[in-house]
Amino acid sequence: MAKPGAESDPLLGRARGGSGDCPAGLATCRSVQASPGAVASWGLRIDQAVVFIEDAIKYRSINHRVDARSLWLYRWYYSDLCQGTLNFAIYLILSLAFIETPSSLSRTADVRYRSPPWEPPCGLTESVEVLCLLVFVADLSTKGYLFGRAHFQKNLWLLAYLGVLIVSLVDWTVSVSLLCREPLRVRRLLRPFFLLQNSSMMKKTLKCIRWSLPQMASVGLLLAIHLCFFTMFGMLLFAGEKDDGQNRERMTYFRNLPDALTSLLVLLTTANNPDVMIPAYSRNRAYAIFFIVFTLIGSLFLMNLLTAIIYSRFRGYLMQSLQTSLFRRRLGTRAAYEVLSSMSGKGEASPQGVGVKPQNLLHVLRKVQLNSFHKQALIEKVCSYGDVPLSASEFQRIFNELDKTVVKEHPARPEYQSPFLQSAQFLFGHYYFDYLGNFIALGNLVSICVFLVLDADVLPGDRDDFILGILNCIFILYYVLEMLLKVFALGLRGYLSYPSNVFDGLLTTVLLVLEISTLAVYRFPHPGWRPQMQGLLSLWDMVRLLNMLIVFRFLRIIPNMKPMAVVASTVLGLIQNMRAFGGILVVVYYVFAIIGINLFRGIIVAPPGNGRSLPAPCTFRTPPDLALLPPQAALITLWNVMVVNNWQVFLDAYRRYSGPWSKIYFVSWWLVSSVIWVNLFLALMLENFLHKWDPQSHLQSLAGTEEATYQMSVELMFRDILEEPNEEELTERLSCHRYLQLCR
Amino acid sequence: MAKPGAESDPLLGRARGGSGDCPAGLATCRSVQASPGAVASWGLRIDQAVVFIEDAIKYRSINHRVDARSLWLYRWYYSDLCQGTLNFAIYLILSLAFIETPSSLSRTADVRYRSPPWEPPCGLTESVEVLCLLVFVADLSTKGYLFGRAHFQKNLWLLAYLGVLIVSLVDWTVSVSLLCREPLRVRRLLRPFFLLQNSSMMKKTLKCIRWSLPQMASVGLLLAIHLCFFTMFGMLLFAGEKDDGQNRERMTYFRNLPDALTSLLVLLTTANNPDVMIPAYSRNRAYAIFFIVFTLIGSLFLMNLLTAIIYSRFRGYLMQSLQTSLFRRRLGTRAAYEVLSSMSGKGEASPQGVGVKPQNLLHVLRKVQLNSFHKQALIEKVCSYGDVPLSASEFQRIFNELDKTVVKEHPARPEYQSPFLQSAQFLFGHYYFDYLGNFIALGNLVSICVFLVLDADVLPGDRDDFILGILNCIFILYYVLEMLLKVFALGLRGYLSYPSNVFDGLLTTVLLVLEISTLAVYRFPHPGWRPQMQGLLSLWDMVRLLNMLIVFRFLRIIPNMKPMAVVASTVLGLIQNMRAFGGILVVVYYVFAIIGINLFRGIIVAPPGNGRSLPAPCTFRTPPDLALLPPQAALITLWNVMVVNNWQVFLDAYRRYSGPWSKIYFVSWWLVSSVIWVNLFLALMLENFLHKWDPQSHLQSLAGTEEATYQMSVELMFRDILEEPNEEELTERLSCHRYLQLCR
Repeated sequence: MAKPGAESDPLLGRARGGSGDCPAGLATCRSVQASPGAVASWGLRIDQAVVFIEDAIKYRSINHRVDARSLWLYRWYYSDLCQGTLNFAIYLILSLAFIETPSSLSRTADVRYRSPPWEPPCGLTESVEVLCLLVFVADLSTKGYLFGRAHFQKNLWLLAYLGVLIVSLVDWTVSVSLLCREPLRVRRLLRPFFLLQNSSMMKKTLKCIRWSLPQMASVGLLLAIHLCFFTMFGMLLFAGEKDDGQNRERMTYFRNLPDALTSLLVLLTTANNPDVMIPAYSRNRAYAIFFIVFTLIGSLFLMNLLTAIIYSRFRGYLMQSLQTSLFRRRLGTRAAYEVLSSMSGKGEASPQGVGVKPQNLLHVLRKVQLNSFHKQALIEKVCSYGDVPLSASEFQRIFNELDKTVVKEHPARPEYQSPFLQSAQFLFGHYYFDYLGNFIALGNLVSICVFLVLDADVLPGDRDDFILGILNCIFILYYVLEMLLKVFALGLRGYLSYPSNVFDGLLTTVLLVLEISTLAVYRFPHPGWRPQMQGLLSLWDMVRLLNMLIVFRFLRIIPNMKPMAVVASTVLGLIQNMRAFGGILVVVYYVFAIIGINLFRGIIVAPPGNGRSLPAPCTFRTPPDLALLPPQAALITLWNVMVVNNWQVFLDAYRRYSGPWSKIYFVSWWLVSSVIWVNLFLALMLENFLHKWDPQSHLQSLAGTEEATYQMSVELMFRDILEEPNEEELTERLSCHRYLQLCR
Repeated sequence: MAKPGAESDPLLGRARGGSGDCPAGLATCRSVQASPGAVASWGLRIDQAVVFIEDAIKYRSINHRVDARSLWLYRWYYSDLCQGTLNFAIYLILSLAFIETPSSLSRTADVRYRSPPWEPPCGLTESVEVLCLLVFVADLSTKGYLFGRAHFQKNLWLLAYLGVLIVSLVDWTVSVSLLCREPLRVRRLLRPFFLLQNSSMMKKTLKCIRWSLPQMASVGLLLAIHLCFFTMFGMLLFAGEKDDGQNRERMTYFRNLPDALTSLLVLLTTANNPDVMIPAYSRNRAYAIFFIVFTLIGSLFLMNLLTAIIYSRFRGYLMQSLQTSLFRRRLGTRAAYEVLSSMSGKGEASPQGVGVKPQNLLHVLRKVQLNSFHKQALIEKVCSYGDVPLSASEFQRIFNELDKTVVKEHPARPEYQSPFLQSAQFLFGHYYFDYLGNFIALGNLVSICVFLVLDADVLPGDRDDFILGILNCIFILYYVLEMLLKVFALGLRGYLSYPSNVFDGLLTTVLLVLEISTLAVYRFPHPGWRPQMQGLLSLWDMVRLLNMLIVFRFLRIIPNMKPMAVVASTVLGLIQNMRAFGGILVVVYYVFAIIGINLFRGIIVAPPGNGRSLPAPCTFRTPPDLALLPPQAALITLWNVMVVNNWQVFLDAYRRYSGPWSKIYFVSWWLVSSVIWVNLFLALMLENFLHKWDPQSHLQSLAGTEEATYQMSVELMFRDILEEPNEEELTERLSCHRYLQLCR
């Protein structure tokens, strides 16, 4: 409808209006200075341009130091090695939680059979941790140096980074000096922050959530009033009819205010739906109306309202953050242009105004780190301009090449001399051959399926695997043949250039190896083929593994079916763009898991005897008590609450073992994960798909190749509805640059 | 983003391009005919214009007969009385299901305590039914006559209407001749059709669903493949490990192919979430990954994909159908213009071209059925043109007045002479007095709440209601006083012009009556006030009723809180626009309930003894078996499956009692109600709220009055993004009119 993020939006005004912060003294050019700092050497200018263009490509800010040494440090800091080390340190410190003391990785989750977990000696995790922290200290100080003190003091994220590092190091010292016997490790809670601050998309998403909080709070208030209203109404309605015999509903769901409130809160997620209604309903049918009205208003209206709010806010915010990214790209290229043009204008005063010499730009481009496809395209484009100096708009236009999607070209097929080989190549390179392969894979699947159904009631020990064994043997031979024929037709490199072939070939090889080892260990199949177990796996397990791989291999049909390919490619593209969301979820998950482990530590011990003596009345309902209560299973418990169904069981179990306040923990987790995050995710999906299925863009995507769909990033997807930043904004922002003095 | 329903849309092309169907012989004007049919009398022209304008107002088609008798019939057919009768007949025939034989309305739902249902004597429901059917026959024949045979033969809805009526009448005859002993009543299944065909919005919604089916089918296919893939994988993974002792998960969830498929289908809705995972998880933690990946792909991606598809299709479709409505309105006014202008052009050839004389239009407007506010506005607008003939565009512009929202004016306050009364009026008419009232109502609520908490553990018989009785007495006196003072300040009519005051006054009156009757029956409260039951209700029930009403009365605070008022008014506006969706749900609900009643009739009888002997292992799980299985409770059962939680319980219970094919019934109901309908509803909500919260329109709505928000219909909401139909389209369509010959 209306363009999101219009001028009236306070968000946008803030994002754009950086000029208010521009220090007045630096905004005016200090005339033509003769000092070596102001008029830089040719090499420095080239380096500056290279860095600015790299900033533009990666949508980074350009407000960093630009002297020669800093530029070297900057490029080094953003090199793959450095960033890789940083990322590795982040994942390492996060994964420490799996082996640290209160947690445990054990094979079985059943408290009755579990061996006591392995406890790492004091000092092992701590030493890994301090190494990671030192990496972060180095990271922070590099960043602080590169962006300068003023930026550091203004940037809340960097300040928080500093704070978190200090707290972590102090906590670590305490921990080490107490020989790991400290009661609480604050730093574990702070760890996810490192993940958060390292991703700009995650920071943006967080900001988006923060901006939508006020509107969400108003719906939340409405929800709370709705809940309280119905709670009071329900208590008055159900509590205290005078027949004491069978007023079960009063006893279980509306006994007192907290219980009634919990029952209805859970009903809001429909998790206890028929149960909470049944006692009242079986007394008087009309009581069902109470629950139906509650669910209609609460779940259907108010919860969907939350979805709508999150979607509408998210949409505006996404546009605005993409706008910022575009601005950064334009600013980066513009800065490179200014630097290069000031360089060429220094020696001679060219008559047709200042501009950038294509040779200089070529020189810069050769030094820029970029994938070869785009680099080639850029260089070709520049060469097409010949020797004429480039104007600013031409310069910008050259970099539009970056938005072109990478089109993968498959290597040429090998050429055979003999006509027989040629016709064989035509035959096996044709896509009908693919279809035949799919058809045969389907046949294999059906055969496995038939055997599964036939064997369903036979105990594994009594099964005769002769026929299935023979069948699998034949099918696997066919797969190998198919692979070889395809390699023959397309050439090895051509074969490997299709991802589906790589997938196929890999699985076929694994299948072949498995089959050969099965035959080697258990000999050829024959009727009544039921050998004893030899080696690592029994024959039955081997066959199972084989079958699983065959089922898995069948997934190769997906790209061959048009509607499924479109959907699957969209989903794949979504996953690429979704790392920020996944990251946020990981952060929240981590924090909640750590809190949960500390809160509920040791409240569940292995029950005596066979563990069936728990007070829960129903075996169907006890497994969570048995397996999921220990805080070691925090991740699974949180997942189950997030999926919402039957989360009242967890509420109830934890209430019984650790008191009524545990409810707050689970309710807040439900709010964060299921309400906010899942809705945010839905918003992302809606936005992506709506754009994909727009009638206009749909036609394009049908016309384009399949690879083009894969490579599409969020930034490119919405490029056509973003505003181009205008000339004045760019130059104004450039004139505010703290370290770059451009004098014309 | 891009405008939905752009020119490339096949839907739109079809909706607009009605000219292809235009019979060539009628498209050209048959020159100036002297026959009485062609050049109509003044009165007839006026009547035609009146009907066309009424068509425009109601967004109706104008392709009906326009001779004098038909016009009378047409207006009579669309009069409130006729349409009211028709609607009453529809609801009557639908509600027959509640008292017909296999269904029953009983107070308790518990099969153990229920008395046998009342069976209506044969002929009672049948005679009501035949009356309704005769009304429908009359309706169909009137419609058929008014729109003519050619239209009738082209219109599938009318043909289907005819078919349904014939089948129903035949079935009725069979039923009566068999003395109501027939095994199957087909006509009960067909009844919802009458509801469907009577609402154009419902028909449009159905069309929208039909158009999105292909895309939904492709996602459905993906879902099916996802399900099958994981089922096979799961069976291979979990089935047949050789320790026979505790492979429970194989026994319960992955025993055989149908069971595994059902388990995973239910897991797709997350309804059996922790349960299905527990057995595998407690053996090996890594198995949890299988279930988590399944849920992530299935619930998070594919189900949300369905939402996105439905939303994107719905959005385009909504726009397109609103566009059709706009076209109908413009066409209606244009037709009225043509009729009126041909009339004025007949006698004298005016020099400034043809036009409509304002007097004629005034004459027409006075005869048009319209609410007085809009009629007044239209007449004023016409009068402002004086005597100048109106051109076509001026004529159209006049009718833009119809889009203005009704602004309700409150009557003036009564004027008092005495300064004391005046200041009292100021005081009690001020909105602070409202706030005081809300505050006191809150106090009352809190007091009730406190007593609820205090009395939670006391049996009803032992409670002392003295203090609460006194408090309620005082509060109710205050409410009465408040009401009287407000009536004094605003005058009776002014008081009643606010809906919140009507709500308030009504409840206060009921409270007063209840309190007085309590006092009359049980005397004044005193400590230890625990009288015996007298009259209809015990004191405790009286007090409960009183408290419920007080809680209910507290809802009056909603309009006083700004964010809640906005949300609540949006929700209210949504409900108005949502009748079509509700109707579709009712239709589907009805059909499924009838099918269910017939399918599962008599499979559950009251279990012998105390009913606890059912094979289900767990009392927590049996209530559905006891109370919800009888098909008499079809509505509640379907509601519970629609709410999705724990629907596997119903699947399982019905499978046990009536065989495995009952699953298909429930799965298809789940697909229709929970997947399609709920998503459609979400789409409607998103569209409404996104528009409401658009930055631009938000500003407008803040500026406007609150009443304006209430009156907004879907048609008006999106008016600004719809295209105006152009001149040629309108005249072309008019020239195709079968019964209207316009000669200029």
